[in-house]
Amino acid sequence: MLAAIRSRAAGVAGLGSGFRRVRLGIGDDCALLRPRSGEEVAVTTDLSIEGRHFRLNWHSPESVGHRTLARGLSDLAAMGAKPVAAFLSLGLPRELTVAENGPAWVERFLDGLLGLAREHRVPLVGGDLAESPLAVADIVLTGVVPRGKALLRSGAKAGDRIYVTGSLGGAAAELAALSTNPEAFQDRRRGDAAPHLFPQPRVKQGIWLRKCGLASAAMDLSDGLSTDLQHLCEESGGAAEVESAALPLGTGASLAMALHGGEDYELLFTAAKDVRVPQAIAGVAIAEIGRMRAAKAGRPTVALRTDNGLEPLMANGWEHFSMNAEKKLKNG
Amino acid sequence: MLAAIRSRAAGVAGLGSGFRRVRLGIGDDCALLRPRSGEEVAVTTDLSIEGRHFRLNWHSPESVGHRTLARGLSDLAAMGAKPVAAFLSLGLPRELTVAENGPAWVERFLDGLLGLAREHRVPLVGGDLAESPLAVADIVLTGVVPRGKALLRSGAKAGDRIYVTGSLGGAAAELAALSTNPEAFQDRRRGDAAPHLFPQPRVKQGIWLRKCGLASAAMDLSDGLSTDLQHLCEESGGAAEVESAALPLGTGASLAMALHGGEDYELLFTAAKDVRVPQAIAGVAIAEIGRMRAAKAGRPTVALRTDNGLEPLMANGWEHFSMNAEKKLKNG
Repeated sequence: MLAAIRSRAAGVAGLGSGFRRVRLGIGDDCALLRPRSGEEVAVTTDLSIEGRHFRLNWHSPESVGHRTLARGLSDLAAMGAKPVAAFLSLGLPRELTVAENGPAWVERFLDGLLGLAREHRVPLVGGDLAESPLAVADIVLTGVVPRGKALLRSGAKAGDRIYVTGSLGGAAAELAALSTNPEAFQDRRRGDAAPHLFPQPRVKQGIWLRKCGLASAAMDLSDGLSTDLQHLCEESGGAAEVESAALPLGTGASLAMALHGGEDYELLFTAAKDVRVPQAIAGVAIAEIGRMRAAKAGRPTVALRTDNGLEPLMANGWEHFSMNAEKKLKNG
Repeated sequence: MLAAIRSRAAGVAGLGSGFRRVRLGIGDDCALLRPRSGEEVAVTTDLSIEGRHFRLNWHSPESVGHRTLARGLSDLAAMGAKPVAAFLSLGLPRELTVAENGPAWVERFLDGLLGLAREHRVPLVGGDLAESPLAVADIVLTGVVPRGKALLRSGAKAGDRIYVTGSLGGAAAELAALSTNPEAFQDRRRGDAAPHLFPQPRVKQGIWLRKCGLASAAMDLSDGLSTDLQHLCEESGGAAEVESAALPLGTGASLAMALHGGEDYELLFTAAKDVRVPQAIAGVAIAEIGRMRAAKAGRPTVALRTDNGLEPLMANGWEHFSMNAEKKLKNG
């Protein structure tokens, strides 16, 4: 299996602009990255575990591979970092590595992962393989960003407007449908409108935001708006008010799914109120969904404005929409 | 658990020389590393899985934490890289996170991991946490090395002498004893002579070798001398001859354990025959164990010289000594 992965990874290695920053890939004790002078290196890790983040009878192997990489790319996007290289630690039961009536599960997993890698021109340059009673995949993404220019969660100020890319809740809606009839979803492929099975990390949009310098804070929406906006408020030392009517609902999504669903992998960002934010960035719509407020004792950190007035928006109110409700070391 | 780890990691964050190269740690979508101008960034990942790399009834939680980090540090050592920052993706069954008659398993795991991190002045700056049916820990180590100066596996030439740090087979001997009477080993701690439970990654020795420039090739001994020397020969395009009588046997180790045992985490390196290699580096003994030969059709890649003459040394002849016989993406 080692030789197969090495050979397949080599097919991606030469593709990317990231490749110019990879001095040494698979084959030695470490990979070596060569950032340019004045660049910082962004690093993120995301652990995906069978039964927690995906299910073998719900998710096609291509979807698991795609989602594994998408989670890491989305973290880079949130910092405005340009992807340089990916590392994959993969633990698999032996039966998933054996071909039977078609390619082995791991081959199709790699199809999904390397397909998205190719799209974002990020080479797979290292990792680890082990036999495991259940499937686990830890993805490490590295990227570069000019010194001091990364988008952080911590810069939002009272009065700033709050924006999201794309739409919210579509992943939760697709997951809900998937859970009732998994067979109907086995043909979905990358490029289909499949926000849960094949999410599109907003790498271009993140880099655009970093380059134009209009965002005061940014992060990606992995745990759901209610949870993630709470984190942004905590890191920025502020509060937020979301307009219910302004939320861009994904296909089939309820308001609850948009607020709490998670795994949309859209970007959440803030900008000063006098900054002109475009209606779309690199082909993806941008919606203004609320504003930052000063934090105040006795006032909820995140509040939702509806026809009935303002109500507290609790983090993770609908945890069961998400397969991925765990807390993270860095909440990526 | 997130807050606890974040707080404990913060205790290590300020310690290291590595810290000056960490701009942003736990708390945002990515960590940000700031290598100095002219530095390359070394990255390695190592996946540890319950039942494959450790057993809950054999290994104390401190040992599992220590070994998790030691594997990554040893890969950095093999390149001569200076550790900068560690990332940990941790999947755990809920019961391992709950305190009961003393600290929770995860607390003691972190004691082991962060104890070694402190010793090597490497901060834990990110990662991921998830609930998992079995314990899995993927460690990511990043380090820096001056541009073009990393020790590689690929530079050994015919005639070069082959060296190892420390002694070989001690880890396999301790594992064999441990497997017959685990209770007797529960009190072993970092600093004890416990090459399997608490291996000492040769970070200082690797950096010394890189700085003085005497090694033509280097790697760490994780899979066992017979396997790892084979890899070094493949990457260097040569062959090797090992002197049986010259092998420095670890405590309790048989010749077979020294040849095939694995997990010693010593360094294997080569140097031109006219280079003077010291008898010890940073307090660890160095032994000359053989020489590189030209690769030749019909001759084994790695051969062992004993009283009976020269015989082929097959890779992984004694796989069962090792709990970690899987092939790796990068053979770290």
